[in-house]
Amino acid sequence: MIKLFQYNWFTRNEWFELFKQVPEEELLRNRGPSCILYILFHICDVEYSWIRGIQGRPDIQIQFENYKTLEQVKELSDSWIKETEVFLNTWSDDCENEIVSVSWTEGRYTKGEILRHVIAHEIHHKGQLALWAREIGLQPISANVIGRGLFGI
Amino acid sequence: MIKLFQYNWFTRNEWFELFKQVPEEELLRNRGPSCILYILFHICDVEYSWIRGIQGRPDIQIQFENYKTLEQVKELSDSWIKETEVFLNTWSDDCENEIVSVSWTEGRYTKGEILRHVIAHEIHHKGQLALWAREIGLQPISANVIGRGLFGI
Repeated sequence: MIKLFQYNWFTRNEWFELFKQVPEEELLRNRGPSCILYILFHICDVEYSWIRGIQGRPDIQIQFENYKTLEQVKELSDSWIKETEVFLNTWSDDCENEIVSVSWTEGRYTKGEILRHVIAHEIHHKGQLALWAREIGLQPISANVIGRGLFGI
Repeated sequence: MIKLFQYNWFTRNEWFELFKQVPEEELLRNRGPSCILYILFHICDVEYSWIRGIQGRPDIQIQFENYKTLEQVKELSDSWIKETEVFLNTWSDDCENEIVSVSWTEGRYTKGEILRHVIAHEIHHKGQLALWAREIGLQPISANVIGRGLFGI
């Protein structure tokens, strides 16, 4: 499971790098459901919130209004990835079936279910970014998991 | 890992169901990189090809030209899911690091890497489907992993 987090972080950073060349107004342009920069912010926010939730720590409310540049969102992402990585390094199969409740939604979920939810959430939104990248004339970041050296061969 | 295949199949079927109400010409309309029906076909084709590759079985070449209706792609999907499910039920952690080569691409990959590649590939493309669904006035299928009863609570 942790490999898919590493994949998400690796490709997330590729997306940040790609979007450096894009003017801020394009990153903030409303494209129907949202804008490019908000999607990046949202990916980070959702991951970190759930990771805190799994740990039983209170949610931190942050506002997109305070993170309106690519650099700011990237800094947020870097800092949260570091924390999340430390936590995931403590993960064991025993955690899989432990039950969690969080403040922002009803329901009880297993920790394993939440990890998979977070992984899928980010990949899903990057699929949207791929279409929006094409709209502004950019070659999207590949969604390939293979061939990234994540598996040591 | 198998839970994420189950999630993909569950939501894939929800997408098939949603698109039943959409006229064929909309499903086949070129939307830049591709069309809705081709994406569904491609998701099934890529998964099945890699699963056969992992098993050391030769690739089967099928042409989209022969599967130009939603029903035909759904039938293909159903039949391949059945086979894939049987195979994944034989999966054990020992398989993770076994090395595989396939006919359609260079490189050597671990079986674990390939499973994750297939999972991410489908979720990525469904992110695109979500945007295209909105374009034709449909509420996209949720990408949520949580709350689908896949984890027994």
